Amino acid sequence: MILAGGAGERFWPASRSDRPKQFLRVLGRQTLLDATLSRARRFARKDRIWIACGAEHAKAVRKASGLPASRVLVEPRRRNTAMAAAWASHRVQRIDPDAVLAVLAADHHVPDAAAFAKDIRLAARAAAEEEVLVTLGVRPTRPETGYGYVQVGPRARGFPRLCRVRRFVEKPDGPTARRYLAQGDYRWNAGIFVWRASVFLAEVERRAPDLHRALAPFRRPGGHTRKAVEAAFRRAPTLPVDVAVMERSDRVWTLPVEFAWSDVGTWLSLAEELGVGRGNTRGNRVLGGEAVLEGARNNLVWAGERVVALLGVEDLVVVDTEDVIFVTKLDGRSDVRRLVAKLREAGRDELL
Amino acid sequence: MILAGGAGERFWPASRSDRPKQFLRVLGRQTLLDATLSRARRFARKDRIWIACGAEHAKAVRKASGLPASRVLVEPRRRNTAMAAAWASHRVQRIDPDAVLAVLAADHHVPDAAAFAKDIRLAARAAAEEEVLVTLGVRPTRPETGYGYVQVGPRARGFPRLCRVRRFVEKPDGPTARRYLAQGDYRWNAGIFVWRASVFLAEVERRAPDLHRALAPFRRPGGHTRKAVEAAFRRAPTLPVDVAVMERSDRVWTLPVEFAWSDVGTWLSLAEELGVGRGNTRGNRVLGGEAVLEGARNNLVWAGERVVALLGVEDLVVVDTEDVIFVTKLDGRSDVRRLVAKLREAGRDELL
Repeated sequence: MILAGGAGERFWPASRSDRPKQFLRVLGRQTLLDATLSRARRFARKDRIWIACGAEHAKAVRKASGLPASRVLVEPRRRNTAMAAAWASHRVQRIDPDAVLAVLAADHHVPDAAAFAKDIRLAARAAAEEEVLVTLGVRPTRPETGYGYVQVGPRARGFPRLCRVRRFVEKPDGPTARRYLAQGDYRWNAGIFVWRASVFLAEVERRAPDLHRALAPFRRPGGHTRKAVEAAFRRAPTLPVDVAVMERSDRVWTLPVEFAWSDVGTWLSLAEELGVGRGNTRGNRVLGGEAVLEGARNNLVWAGERVVALLGVEDLVVVDTEDVIFVTKLDGRSDVRRLVAKLREAGRDELL
Repeated sequence: MILAGGAGERFWPASRSDRPKQFLRVLGRQTLLDATLSRARRFARKDRIWIACGAEHAKAVRKASGLPASRVLVEPRRRNTAMAAAWASHRVQRIDPDAVLAVLAADHHVPDAAAFAKDIRLAARAAAEEEVLVTLGVRPTRPETGYGYVQVGPRARGFPRLCRVRRFVEKPDGPTARRYLAQGDYRWNAGIFVWRASVFLAEVERRAPDLHRALAPFRRPGGHTRKAVEAAFRRAPTLPVDVAVMERSDRVWTLPVEFAWSDVGTWLSLAEELGVGRGNTRGNRVLGGEAVLEGARNNLVWAGERVVALLGVEDLVVVDTEDVIFVTKLDGRSDVRRLVAKLREAGRDELL
């Protein structure tokens, strides 16, 4: 189950409301969505792959994935991942009451697809046999304050590598993130989950009564009709699945994984992924088109149709798109969403 | 006589080889060339206005100025201002042996056209009556290292404000420029000259024998035929008129002027002209098109068709053109010509 509902504001102006990050060739020749589909194919038959997305992207998702309309779950409202995961679990459970879901984000970057598939299989075995919700825990490589963390608990019995979760923590401040990094038993909560649909829905009932109530239309005869979906989404709370269910559940295990992972969530994280600031190109990286650099250091250039010429500048992101040129600093101190909000307030929706 | 032969590389990518700075609306609604023509009209009849330019711009100059082809002197080779001024003086002297020329650059910015005209008239009176070459001396407003200076000598007799020149100095280093600024008797040599054509040519003969020899074809019967012009330019040295003649002459006076002047020679000088770093727009200035600024300070944006969005950056120049996006720092440490040279070496003439 690939969740492709992201708005991708933090990657503006490369990502837009009608072309979010999952449709971009951010790293490599494939779009992030195509790469996610390829990864999923390593452990799932094609007819077991589902995608959930917003109505505005349904057509593009169907085209990119080749999936039949029946396996593209079109969310009538943006309700964040708790509702998406619950609907998906309900829908799949209806076909196979014992179904085990791997819930993936459409816009993550995982270079080692083989290691990823191996770990998903291991997590799926635990989820199938032990009635647990498994979250993959990625080893932190920097004191990131933009992610949630899981504190890894004692090893679970009967399965290699799987552990209990001591606790979930929301995005920490800088000093806390540095402590987590030093301490070693904290992992990034990467938002990749594996569970038996029925187990997840039982936890929704127990831990997220609002969400459970919203799902009522699905429990009636007829199930997932368009009308039922609309009724359910109307009532559903807007919450991430971590907050609504995972943090409150005592049935969560984590699989600490060692493969490289990035949510490519910001220009800064893309820059780190691409090695900006390192290597023998004076630390510069150029994507997409052409750049001419003179005395420029540690810049990330997202070039388009035009030549991007940088003279004597450092630590910048320069993005050229058809209608917007965007320049910001690579220090992580500025949030693109402030700019996006400003444009929205000004009624400049054509740029979003 | 308006010299419009500049290549305008320092203003790349707004200026290009086929559209140098004088054709841009850099400050205000007029192009710099149009503004120069307007200034000239305040003290010269329309049929006394001449322009010298390169062959590649002759058509655009004729169109912009409305001058007949006979008063557009098309330079067959780029030979800098000494040859342009000498040819112009020769050409005009042929029509009127007593002609006094005001030699103006096509791409300077002088907001107070009335003061300018008044000073040119005064200089012209001195040049006509005293057989001197007059250079206008602009009061320095910063320790500029990109200009030549004149040290102002004692007052000339018989004319208000005109002074002898103690010496010319080439572009000084930083400490020297600061000393000139503090000392008060140094002026920018703005490259605006007033002389009687015959006096200038006599000084060429005395001080610049190479240039004088190159002018030989003009002294033959027939004068300024195309063939003569080509022969003269082939032999002419490539030198600025300051170096070839003015610095070596003992007949130079200066008129210290108080009007504001800028050669808009670099992005930095345009930024200063526009007040970047001052005012209640967080020091930002936007030309041409549209910018969206969030947490951005002291930037100069030359916008085009696209929206330029700046987030959390400061002291930058961001230029959007049809085929190039250019970003540099406003610290004056980087020379655009290095980038232009790099593109030329790479054979990217279509961008120049």
